[in-house]
Amino acid sequence: MAVSAFDHPLLSGLFGDEEVAALLGFDAELAAMLRFEIALAASEAEAGVIPQEAANAITKALAGFKPDMAALRNGVARDGVAVPELIWQMRGMIGAPHADRLHFGATSQDAIDTALVLRLRPVLEVLERRLYELVERFEGLNKRFGRNPLMGRTRMQAAIDISAGDRIRSWREPLVRHKARLEALRPALLAVQFGGAAGTLDKLGGKGNAVRAALAQRLGLADVPQWQSQRDRIADFASFLSLLTGSLGKFGQDIALMAQSGGEIALSGGGGSSAMPHKQNPVAAEILITLARFNATQLSGMHHALVHEQERSGSSWSLEWLILPQMIVAASSALRLATELTGRIDRLGA
Amino acid sequence: MAVSAFDHPLLSGLFGDEEVAALLGFDAELAAMLRFEIALAASEAEAGVIPQEAANAITKALAGFKPDMAALRNGVARDGVAVPELIWQMRGMIGAPHADRLHFGATSQDAIDTALVLRLRPVLEVLERRLYELVERFEGLNKRFGRNPLMGRTRMQAAIDISAGDRIRSWREPLVRHKARLEALRPALLAVQFGGAAGTLDKLGGKGNAVRAALAQRLGLADVPQWQSQRDRIADFASFLSLLTGSLGKFGQDIALMAQSGGEIALSGGGGSSAMPHKQNPVAAEILITLARFNATQLSGMHHALVHEQERSGSSWSLEWLILPQMIVAASSALRLATELTGRIDRLGA
Amino acid sequence: MAVSAFDHPLLSGLFGDEEVAALLGFDAELAAMLRFEIALAASEAEAGVIPQEAANAITKALAGFKPDMAALRNGVARDGVAVPELIWQMRGMIGAPHADRLHFGATSQDAIDTALVLRLRPVLEVLERRLYELVERFEGLNKRFGRNPLMGRTRMQAAIDISAGDRIRSWREPLVRHKARLEALRPALLAVQFGGAAGTLDKLGGKGNAVRAALAQRLGLADVPQWQSQRDRIADFASFLSLLTGSLGKFGQDIALMAQSGGEIALSGGGGSSAMPHKQNPVAAEILITLARFNATQLSGMHHALVHEQERSGSSWSLEWLILPQMIVAASSALRLATELTGRIDRLGA
Amino acid sequence: MAVSAFDHPLLSGLFGDEEVAALLGFDAELAAMLRFEIALAASEAEAGVIPQEAANAITKALAGFKPDMAALRNGVARDGVAVPELIWQMRGMIGAPHADRLHFGATSQDAIDTALVLRLRPVLEVLERRLYELVERFEGLNKRFGRNPLMGRTRMQAAIDISAGDRIRSWREPLVRHKARLEALRPALLAVQFGGAAGTLDKLGGKGNAVRAALAQRLGLADVPQWQSQRDRIADFASFLSLLTGSLGKFGQDIALMAQSGGEIALSGGGGSSAMPHKQNPVAAEILITLARFNATQLSGMHHALVHEQERSGSSWSLEWLILPQMIVAASSALRLATELTGRIDRLGA
Repeated sequence: MAVSAFDHPLLSGLFGDEEVAALLGFDAELAAMLRFEIALAASEAEAGVIPQEAANAITKALAGFKPDMAALRNGVARDGVAVPELIWQMRGMIGAPHADRLHFGATSQDAIDTALVLRLRPVLEVLERRLYELVERFEGLNKRFGRNPLMGRTRMQAAIDISAGDRIRSWREPLVRHKARLEALRPALLAVQFGGAAGTLDKLGGKGNAVRAALAQRLGLADVPQWQSQRDRIADFASFLSLLTGSLGKFGQDIALMAQSGGEIALSGGGGSSAMPHKQNPVAAEILITLARFNATQLSGMHHALVHEQERSGSSWSLEWLILPQMIVAASSALRLATELTGRIDRLGA
Repeated sequence: MAVSAFDHPLLSGLFGDEEVAALLGFDAELAAMLRFEIALAASEAEAGVIPQEAANAITKALAGFKPDMAALRNGVARDGVAVPELIWQMRGMIGAPHADRLHFGATSQDAIDTALVLRLRPVLEVLERRLYELVERFEGLNKRFGRNPLMGRTRMQAAIDISAGDRIRSWREPLVRHKARLEALRPALLAVQFGGAAGTLDKLGGKGNAVRAALAQRLGLADVPQWQSQRDRIADFASFLSLLTGSLGKFGQDIALMAQSGGEIALSGGGGSSAMPHKQNPVAAEILITLARFNATQLSGMHHALVHEQERSGSSWSLEWLILPQMIVAASSALRLATELTGRIDRLGA
Repeated sequence: MAVSAFDHPLLSGLFGDEEVAALLGFDAELAAMLRFEIALAASEAEAGVIPQEAANAITKALAGFKPDMAALRNGVARDGVAVPELIWQMRGMIGAPHADRLHFGATSQDAIDTALVLRLRPVLEVLERRLYELVERFEGLNKRFGRNPLMGRTRMQAAIDISAGDRIRSWREPLVRHKARLEALRPALLAVQFGGAAGTLDKLGGKGNAVRAALAQRLGLADVPQWQSQRDRIADFASFLSLLTGSLGKFGQDIALMAQSGGEIALSGGGGSSAMPHKQNPVAAEILITLARFNATQLSGMHHALVHEQERSGSSWSLEWLILPQMIVAASSALRLATELTGRIDRLGA
Repeated sequence: MAVSAFDHPLLSGLFGDEEVAALLGFDAELAAMLRFEIALAASEAEAGVIPQEAANAITKALAGFKPDMAALRNGVARDGVAVPELIWQMRGMIGAPHADRLHFGATSQDAIDTALVLRLRPVLEVLERRLYELVERFEGLNKRFGRNPLMGRTRMQAAIDISAGDRIRSWREPLVRHKARLEALRPALLAVQFGGAAGTLDKLGGKGNAVRAALAQRLGLADVPQWQSQRDRIADFASFLSLLTGSLGKFGQDIALMAQSGGEIALSGGGGSSAMPHKQNPVAAEILITLARFNATQLSGMHHALVHEQERSGSSWSLEWLILPQMIVAASSALRLATELTGRIDRLGA
């Protein structure tokens, strides 16, 4: 029984995003955690922390790993994270004498945060691709309609004549800056998390940094000191997502107002009504506003999660899990809907 | 691919609530919409708005109705709501000459808002039952441990000696008020929504009020004028949910701090760690904090949705859909976790 | 240098509310704290906790009390609350041998929370009076313009003809419910706070309840057990404030949209522009939206403050201080602006 | 009567920041608006848009300009912005024949947004200076106490031994990134706003860009196209402020928890209590948490303001005014309090 509209069998057709949901979802998460554990074993073997045959056995055993989902679900209910039970299951697959070398010196957060980052990488690519496409769409609208006259409106009142191109510019320019922001935050965000029980890699003796560097390289991530209680990069990414949906919300709001005014825009393919078959509702424009307000709301929770006490806060960390995936999908859907909406604009300006 | 932790195959074992999710989910939603349409037809027949045989045909045809889910999903993507496509499918089942009498004079919002209210009714019962049980649990703790000494703490510092009962009182008393609040908001919340295209029941001539009264009676809901752009009752319910999780968050925070202090509490069944097998983490206590902050965050969005322009705002209304179900499940889970947590307290105070 | 727009020498003319700010501000706060201390001394004398002559001396000495503001300000910077320094100053006024009987058995929170409640009482009266007046204004608009035709709009599109009265109803009805909500929350909100160091009135022996009852009676407040870490009544009041501004935000949004559409409304006295002298901006309508979104934002913080750890949380309690007064003034201003706006409507509907 | 704690005669001693409040406050605002108008006149004279003698007369007349504050306050109440009345008063000072050349081609938003940016410049310098100092303080703490053993805590439970330096690192490292973030956002944020009535500089003919470039140079700001409805730079700055307070909130939370645990930290100069004179409350640590949650709450409103409809939204723009100054002062105060708090740490770790 889906609770979230992003997972609802019907509503996800409007609010959801299949491509991005698949990149983030459980199959991808499990694959990323397996990848983390295998890369960790290989890196630890390379550094002489565990025997090479242990790493080989781990890699081989995990190749065909299928979790016992019911037990994992119970594990989360008990432990707050899936990793203890997951490692237990994996160790059962590996068997003696190498089982204990799996996850050596690591903690749940290493697997979960790194698996998040590994999934964010392709998500950022999707966001970037869609941003580029949408900027192009706005440029296309500008070429077609930019010189059309439009009534400029300030404080919700007719002000002076402007052109459709003037308003298109207010939609396009923030997206160009968002592309630059995405580029700027990528290296800091796509960083390995590896700290062990309380962030000190205590079990790895002097080899902690070498293992972390090798692990990062294997996973194609930046090698940085553990950030398990330093959530600013995650919160900053959430800010980016909300900036993005906010700018698209302005676009949606403008389109909805133009559609209401009549004459300023011609839209095709609006939504139907069960009471008034003749109506054409600018559904995509409205939902852009909805997603902007949704992410503006959620962002607050991601910033509250910065107050992450001590070496690991179960409560603050979990708060991110409840919020971030939905913010990502909201931003992805907003880009998709905005792009679709540009394709339905048959005329802009008078 | 589940986006929300409440729907996640593993995380829902901790954050989710199967009982309440089932009461809210799509099957229940569809059943409630069917119930609305059938009760509407019966009420309109009673008032002479549609022929009795039309109502009979509608009732009969909808008995075995199974929607075409893919088409419904496309309908939502196009129309922003499922109802136009759903009515189209239902009318196909009913066939000539009665098909057009289905949903007569109604609009999507009538079906969706009333179906929400119909599902809230059993949800409120669950919340009330759990509130009662939790209050009893706190009374039980008080009987067992209430006289134990406890260090009272103010501003995070040891202050003076109090008793465990003093602190238990601070957990229990707000819940008693929440029970009264739930009782108080129930009649206003469990009200029919029926307004037609723009709230005026224009197609029902002078019979609108009679049909609405009969409809409300059939559905066991209060008969009130349409409230389609007046969302205060919904936002007020959201406030209640956040008050509830907030109070339980205080309980969780206190337990987590007592567990940290050592000696003030004995807890059984804490969560395990992948790095430190000896640790007992107070997972349920932490998640109570998480759910409190989650709902405190979400509440803001529900109040933004009060700015519901004109006769129906697609964007504000949809914002409720993205938020309210998760708030309900968060509150339900918090009650469940708090009750479980009381059962794991083996000692309170020194 | 005013930081908040509610205190800004110019902006407060629009966003602020002189009447309510005066009821809440420092002079009123100090007067309320004095009143608390005097009533406490009298109640303690009555119960035989302190000598009657001590109470008399306290009452007499505090009659002309003028605080050393610079020292109080330093006290807040040091102690987080003004009360320790304030009591120190007051005791200096009282002198030996009665000085120590001032504030006997009480704590800072008793004085501050009770002083808040004492100031809320007249604030609630203002809110209620304005609510009544605004409801009447809407009834007046309905009498004058209710039968005028108006284009009903759903999803920001023209839907079907309604009347101006239909839309006025959507503005008025929530206010009627808000009046009932205000009535319902008043008794719980207007309650004395008296608990001593950690809520147990430990210094009053068996006389704590008697003193509290007498204190409550003297102050005209409800006598309830201490609620110092149970902030649900405060958060519930904040929810009410945001419900109120949210409903008025819908009114403002509707007016702004009608003004934009042209022809649906005639407004007098709109705001001017520095660039376009001919324009009439519906400033009050816009600010109603602003205040709605402001309070919807703030409400979240008030609910986060429910996670009030142990017997007193300095951080959660202070968070209320940063937020609640502004929410109150925002709601008060919104009522004022909405009432003014109704007076500028020269025509509604076509 | 101060409504905000940041302006409260007593509470501002704890929550407020005199240095930053002065840089932001009304005197600075008026000076910045005067500077804008004088620089605009000079730039327009340079470009041949207005006569040089008009610019001279404007510069001379405005040198001793003192506004009629009561009239300005009324102007804001009427127009929603002070600029129309301010320009009227200024033109009265200038007199014929040059008065009309003041503010030529400009609009209220040009003056207000540019005056905001002019005041943000020194504010950013203060933030940067304090960030540097605080990072140094943490380095100093690390030198003194870094090797002391400390119990690492995860999920609010004792985990394994770490060093005080490990925890100090979790406070310091985010601040280093915040310095880089501040550096990165400065050029985009410190940009002139100049667009005229609806953003097109319509009255300046082909000379708009030249005037804007000259104006930007005179004011020492970046020359960028008008951004009056593109608020992403402002919202991004707000995100930065909340990231900063969030990281400091983690520091405060950790200190408060260490103080509670006893033995892990020695603090001097804690706050006193009116009920328990022996207590030392970690007030500054608590207020860091408060300010973190305050800004995390406010940030949501700043992102809602991104949905800035058409060429200028009175409601969204005003929402920024209600929120941004307080966020800035909260971040400034948090830096100040955190720095003070580092000075009160007499020992860290066992």
